[in-house]
Amino acid sequence: ASPIPTPQLGASIFADLSPAELRAVRSFLLSRPELGLAADRGDSLATNSLFLVELQVPRKSQALQFLSGGRPRPPRLARAIVVFGEQAQPNVTEFVVGPLPRPSYYRAVSYPGRRPIPFAARPVTLLEYELMHRRLLELTEPLYRLLRDTTGFWYHNCSQRCLTFSDVAPRGLGPGERRSWLILQRSVEGHFLHPVGLELLLDHRSRDPRRWALQQLWYNGQYFASAHELAWRYEHGELALPRPPSPERLFSTYEPRGHFSTGTPTAVHGAKVCEPQGKRYRLQGNLLEYGGWRLALRLRSSAGLQLFDLRFNGERLAHELSVQEAAAFYGGSSPAAMQTKYLDSAWGMGALAHELAPGIDCPEVATFLDAHHLYDAAGPERFPRALCLFELPTGVPLRRHFDSDFRGGYRFYAGLEGQALVLRTTATVYNYDYIWDVLLYPNGVLEAKVHATGYVHATFYTPQGLRYGSRLHRHLLGNLHTHLLHYKVDLDIAGTRNSFETVDVRFENISNPWSAGERVVQPRLHRRPRRSERQAAFPFGRALPRYLLFSSPTQRNRWGHPRSYRIQYSSQAGRVLPRGWREERGVAWGRYHLAVTRHHEKEATSSSPYAQHDPWQPAVDFESFIRNDENIENQDLVAWVTVGFLHIPHAEDVPNTATPGNAVGFFLRPFNFFDEDPSVASRGPVIVRPRDPASAPAAVQRWTPARPGPGVAAEPFTYNGTYGQE
Amino acid sequence: ASPIPTPQLGASIFADLSPAELRAVRSFLLSRPELGLAADRGDSLATNSLFLVELQVPRKSQALQFLSGGRPRPPRLARAIVVFGEQAQPNVTEFVVGPLPRPSYYRAVSYPGRRPIPFAARPVTLLEYELMHRRLLELTEPLYRLLRDTTGFWYHNCSQRCLTFSDVAPRGLGPGERRSWLILQRSVEGHFLHPVGLELLLDHRSRDPRRWALQQLWYNGQYFASAHELAWRYEHGELALPRPPSPERLFSTYEPRGHFSTGTPTAVHGAKVCEPQGKRYRLQGNLLEYGGWRLALRLRSSAGLQLFDLRFNGERLAHELSVQEAAAFYGGSSPAAMQTKYLDSAWGMGALAHELAPGIDCPEVATFLDAHHLYDAAGPERFPRALCLFELPTGVPLRRHFDSDFRGGYRFYAGLEGQALVLRTTATVYNYDYIWDVLLYPNGVLEAKVHATGYVHATFYTPQGLRYGSRLHRHLLGNLHTHLLHYKVDLDIAGTRNSFETVDVRFENISNPWSAGERVVQPRLHRRPRRSERQAAFPFGRALPRYLLFSSPTQRNRWGHPRSYRIQYSSQAGRVLPRGWREERGVAWGRYHLAVTRHHEKEATSSSPYAQHDPWQPAVDFESFIRNDENIENQDLVAWVTVGFLHIPHAEDVPNTATPGNAVGFFLRPFNFFDEDPSVASRGPVIVRPRDPASAPAAVQRWTPARPGPGVAAEPFTYNGTYGQE
Ligand SMILES: [Ca+2]
Ligand SMILES: [Ca+2]
Ligand SMILES: [Ca+2]
Ligand SMILES: [Ca+2]
Ligand SMILES: [Cu+2]
Ligand SMILES: [Cu+2]
Repeated sequence: ASPIPTPQLGASIFADLSPAELRAVRSFLLSRPELGLAADRGDSLATNSLFLVELQVPRKSQALQFLSGGRPRPPRLARAIVVFGEQAQPNVTEFVVGPLPRPSYYRAVSYPGRRPIPFAARPVTLLEYELMHRRLLELTEPLYRLLRDTTGFWYHNCSQRCLTFSDVAPRGLGPGERRSWLILQRSVEGHFLHPVGLELLLDHRSRDPRRWALQQLWYNGQYFASAHELAWRYEHGELALPRPPSPERLFSTYEPRGHFSTGTPTAVHGAKVCEPQGKRYRLQGNLLEYGGWRLALRLRSSAGLQLFDLRFNGERLAHELSVQEAAAFYGGSSPAAMQTKYLDSAWGMGALAHELAPGIDCPEVATFLDAHHLYDAAGPERFPRALCLFELPTGVPLRRHFDSDFRGGYRFYAGLEGQALVLRTTATVYNYDYIWDVLLYPNGVLEAKVHATGYVHATFYTPQGLRYGSRLHRHLLGNLHTHLLHYKVDLDIAGTRNSFETVDVRFENISNPWSAGERVVQPRLHRRPRRSERQAAFPFGRALPRYLLFSSPTQRNRWGHPRSYRIQYSSQAGRVLPRGWREERGVAWGRYHLAVTRHHEKEATSSSPYAQHDPWQPAVDFESFIRNDENIENQDLVAWVTVGFLHIPHAEDVPNTATPGNAVGFFLRPFNFFDEDPSVASRGPVIVRPRDPASAPAAVQRWTPARPGPGVAAEPFTYNGTYGQE
Repeated sequence: ASPIPTPQLGASIFADLSPAELRAVRSFLLSRPELGLAADRGDSLATNSLFLVELQVPRKSQALQFLSGGRPRPPRLARAIVVFGEQAQPNVTEFVVGPLPRPSYYRAVSYPGRRPIPFAARPVTLLEYELMHRRLLELTEPLYRLLRDTTGFWYHNCSQRCLTFSDVAPRGLGPGERRSWLILQRSVEGHFLHPVGLELLLDHRSRDPRRWALQQLWYNGQYFASAHELAWRYEHGELALPRPPSPERLFSTYEPRGHFSTGTPTAVHGAKVCEPQGKRYRLQGNLLEYGGWRLALRLRSSAGLQLFDLRFNGERLAHELSVQEAAAFYGGSSPAAMQTKYLDSAWGMGALAHELAPGIDCPEVATFLDAHHLYDAAGPERFPRALCLFELPTGVPLRRHFDSDFRGGYRFYAGLEGQALVLRTTATVYNYDYIWDVLLYPNGVLEAKVHATGYVHATFYTPQGLRYGSRLHRHLLGNLHTHLLHYKVDLDIAGTRNSFETVDVRFENISNPWSAGERVVQPRLHRRPRRSERQAAFPFGRALPRYLLFSSPTQRNRWGHPRSYRIQYSSQAGRVLPRGWREERGVAWGRYHLAVTRHHEKEATSSSPYAQHDPWQPAVDFESFIRNDENIENQDLVAWVTVGFLHIPHAEDVPNTATPGNAVGFFLRPFNFFDEDPSVASRGPVIVRPRDPASAPAAVQRWTPARPGPGVAAEPFTYNGTYGQE
C-alpha cells in the first residue's frame, strides 16, 4: 500500500508527491524550452537534467493557518533540482514548481548567500558511476595481470570473477575538485569486506570522461604515480605482495556456519509479534493515529523520514520532526580510509529506503507502505515496502506496582502492559543499513532511534592500519569512525511560542532546621534559562545538562508549572574533526549535541545534498543559524539534535554490524505538560485486589477481554498476590 | 515452577537454598542453646532472632575447580544473619552454616575491620514496624482532632479512613541513632501520593517501645516540639492550615479516566508476544540456556538477581553478574525529604520480588519461577512467580542488508530476525518498583537493564518545596532524587587473568601522503592500559572513555587481537552527595561510573544490609577495595558498574513513573573476542537472491520453516527486491 494523500485530511498537505504529481512536474519542466532539459540522461554529463523532484513543504505559517481551520489550503508545490551540465558555466539550480496538480510556473530558489550551487558539488549520478566504470575498464588494463595473479579477480575485460569498487568522499581537498579514491573489491556477496589492496585516485572532474585519469594508486601500503608504474614494478618482482587468501568459505555471507554449543533450537521460528485482536492504530493516507498520537508522515527523497503536525490528544507538540543528515567520518592509513568523510544525504539517503522484509525487518503483522521517488531517474519509481508500521509489545509494562501489606498479602496489584507504535524506514547507504525508527508511546512519550547495521566500510589490512581499527580478516581492516545523525525537531509546546531552559542539580549546604548546629547537604534544582541561541548551543566535549526543557512561557498545567517537554538523549556522540578544520565546516551541525534556534523558513534544513562534495563552502552553513545569536525567549524554537557513536570495528562486525548496542536516539517526554500521565486514558490496565477472605480468588478489574486469544494464552489470567510459608 | 537445583548439573552449586535447606539451617541454629535464638519473634525486640538465611556462595576457586571437572563439589553452605537483641550489648552477627543438607557447624564471619555489626545498623523488621504502628496509635492521640478535621483521616483510634505512614532513612544523623522521620499519608490506593502534611520524628532506639517518643513534628512547613504543642496551636487557631483537597476522583489509582482524542481502541488487546513454534530456551533447575548462552541463576534474598558461570559457546565470560545495591538520594524542604537517602538492600530488595502478572509484567507465554526466602520470617516463604523468562521479539533485525545493484534491482537481500532472551525480576521497595532485566542476545551480547516504575516518593507540597521538585497535585510535591544502581561483574575473559584498557580517539595532524604540502587531520585510536585500581576508577563528573575493554593478555583471536569484552554504558548517573560528606561514605561505590578491582573473596559485595542504618561507618567500605591501588595487569578482575539517572518528578509521574525513558543499564559486548559474529551459527537468516530473468520469483534461502504459523502470518514470505518506474 502507498500512503495516498486523502485530500479531505489536513495531513495531506504534507504528503509526498504522488507518481502522477511527480510526472506532472517533470513534464512541465521538460516543456520549458529555456531550461533545455534532456528527456533522458543519455550518455553524457554535459546535459541539463532533472535530478530530483519532491514535495516542497508548505510554509509553516500557511500550514498552521490552514490546519487551524481558518485559511485556505496552501498551494501544493514541488521542489526540483536541476543539474545544468550543458552550460558554459555548469551548475546546479533548485526550483520551486507549482501549483500542482497542473504546474504553471517555476522559480529558482537559492540557499542564503550562495548561488548558484557549483557543478562540482552535485551528487554523483548513476550515469557518472556508469561512466566511471567504463573508464576504469580502460584504465585498469595495465593491471590486469597483477590483479588476476594476486587476487584471482580482475576489472579490465571481466565477465566473471570481477572486481567492483567502493568510492569515498569528499572527492578532493578543496572546492571544485572531483577526484575520488576508489577501493577495488572482489564482486562477491558482501564485497565491502573484500578489498584487494588496490586503491585508485580517479579524477573525474571533466564533463568529458575521455579526459578522466588515474592520478595515483595505492597498493598494499605503497603509492604509485600510474597504473603502468605499478604494473612495471609487479612484472619486475619489486612489489611486496599480500599473501593471497587461503580458499575458504565466504566469510561475508549470511549463510549459517558453526553451531551454538547449547544446542537450543534456531531452525524453528522464535518469539513473534502477533495481534490476536487486530490493529490498534489507524492510517488514513499519510495520517497516522495511535493511542492519543496523530501525525502526518512522509519520506522525502532528499533525506528520509519527515513527520509533521505531531499531536497528542489534539494538541500539537511539534510541527516537524525529521532526519536531516547522517555522517560517518573515518580514520585510516590507506588514502581511501583517511579521505572518507561520508555525508549520506548526497548519496540519496532518503531514496535508499529499500524493501523491508516481513518477519525480519518488521514483524509479519506490520503494515508496509510503498514510497515513490523521482531521484536520478527518468520518472517516478516505486519503492515497495519502503516503510512499515507496527505495534510492538515492548516486553516491559508501561507501569506497574505491587502494593504489599507486608503480612504475606497485598493491598492491590496494578499494571498496564507496555506497547509502542513503531514507524520504521531504512536507508541502505551502500554498505551501511540505517534503521530509522520513531516510537510512539501512549503516555505522550516519543522516541526517535536509529540502529546501524549492514557492512562496515573497510579497507585493505596493513600493519599501519592497526592504529585506526581492528583487523577483521586476513586482508581486512575495519576503520574507526564516528557516526553522527542529525534531526530537526520543531517543537511547539502549547503553542509556537516557547522558551528553553536547562535543569540539573547543585548541592546546597544549609542549617539543619530540625537539629540545631547540624548541617544538611542536599541537591537542589539548578535552573538556567537560556536566553539566546549561543547559550542554547551545547558543543561536544562538555557534559549536557540532564534536563533540557522546552516550555510555554504562558501556559501552565493544573499545578502551576510551565507546560514543558523534555529532550532526553541516548547517545555516545563526539566530534568528527577539530572545529573549523576544512571539511568540518560542512558538518557544523555536528559540533553540538543540541542547538536551539529561532525558527526561520530559510533555515529549513541543516544540510543539503551538496555538503558531501563541497563541505568547504557548504550550501547550508549550520553555524550561521546560531551566529546571529538571536533571542530565544518566547519564540518559535527549533531543536537540532545530534546523536551518534564512536565505532571501532571488531571481529564481530563480520559479517555485519549487529543492532544490539548500536542504537542511539532521543526521547521527547512530557514534563508537567499534562496534569497527570495521559496514558490513564488507556483501557489497558489490570487491577487485582484481594477478596475477603484472603483465600478467595482475587478480584480482577479490567477493561479488556479476559483472554487475549488463542496462540497467546491458553490459560485465563490469574493472580495470587499472597506469599507466605508453605 | 521453582528452580529446583538439579544436582547433576554444575550450576546447582549456585542454586538458592530450597525450603527444606532453609528449614534445616533454621532448625540447626535454633537447636544451639548457646545462641539463645527465639523460635518465634514474639512481641519483643529484646530477643535473639534469625533474620535471614540464604545460600553462602562457594568460593570462586573451589567453584572453578569443581566446574572444570577436576575437583569435588564444594560443600553446600548457608549464610545466616542473627540479630542478638537479648544481650547486654546487642548486635548483629553473620554466620556461615554447613554442610547442607544436614548442618553440623556454624562459624561467625565478619566484615573486614568491623565486628560486631552495631545493633542500630540492623534493618527494620516487620515486628519493629508493628511496634512503631502501635506506639503511634498512642502518640498521635493529641492529633486526632486536627487530623480528622483537616484531612478526613486519622491515626489514633482508627478503623476506617485511616492514616498510614512511610518512613525514611537514615534514621538519624550519626552512628547509633535510630530515629525516623515518618510521613503520614491517607491509607488509600496509592497512599504514597497522599501525604497529609504531617511528618513525625519518632525515636525508636530503645529495645523497649514504651520508651519510644516523638522528638519533633513538622506540619505544613512548621516545626513543633511535641504533638501537644501542635494540637494546642491547632485548637487555638494559630495554624496555617492547608486547604483541604476538593473531593475528586482518586488520582493515584490505575482506574482509567478520560479518553484519547484519536479514538483508537485500547479496550482490546494490543500486540502480544507469541511463540508459534515453541520455546527456544531451556531451563533445567537453575541452569538457563539460550542461543549459545548458558548461565546459573539465583535470586538472593539480600540483594536480588545473581548470575554465575555465564558462558557463551562453552567459554566462561563472567563468573558472576549480580545486583549489589540500589540508592535513591533526595532533596527537599520537609525534614523527611531532606533526610531521605535510601539504600534499598536494607529494605529487603532481594526479598521483595513479588508476583509478576502474566500479560503485563511479562508476556503470557513467559516461564514464571517461584522464589523462596527466609527473610524476617519464622520459616521459608514462597514468593510465587518471582522471576520470569521469555524470548522477546526485539522488533528490529539483529542484522540486515539490502544490496542494491542501483539499476532497479538487487544482488541480494539478507536479514536475521532479532530476538533476545529476557530474564526478569522486580523489587518493589515500598513505593518504587524496579524491574531488573538481563537480556541475552545470540551474538554474545548481554544487556543488563533496570526500569523504574511504581509510585514516586513524595512529600507534602509547600511553596518552599519547589526548589526541590515539581508540584504533582494540590498537596503533593515530587522531590528530586538520583537513582543509582550498582552491579558486580566478575568478568573472566578467556580465563581469569585479564587486563583492562580504555580506548577513545584523538585527532592527529599528519602530512598528506598522496598530496605533498597538504595536511590530514583524522582520528586515531588512543589506548590507555590501566595498570592499577586507581587508574581504573572513573569518578562521576568526568567523561568516561567510550571503549572499556577487558582483555586476555595471552589469548588472541584469529586476527591477532587480544580477546576482549567491552562494557558499554547506557546511563545518566551522577553523584548523590559531595565526596566524603557524611552518608556519602556509605555509598562509596556511588562515586564511580566504573571501578575495576582485583578479585578478592573478602570483597564479595559492595554494600550490605547495614549500609542504610549506618552509612557513616559502613560495614562494607567500597573505597577500601581501591585504596590499596593494586596492580590489575594480568589479574582476576572485577568490574563494579554504577548506572542511574536524575529524576525530577513531573506531573506525568502520577499515577506512576512510567518505564519509557526510565531505563538504564549496560551492555557486555564482545570486542575481538570471537573471530566473527558468533550469531552466524543461528539458522535464522533469510537470504533472497534474484533469479534470471528478474521477473521470476526471487530465490529464498532459509533454514527455518517457510511459515511461522497461524496467528502470525497468513501469507507466505515474499520478497520482490526490485524497484523501478511503474
Ligand atoms: Ca539564528
Ligand atoms: Ca517551534
Ligand atoms: Ca584492591
Ligand atoms: Ca574476573
Ligand atoms: Cu559504523
Ligand atoms: Cu525516581
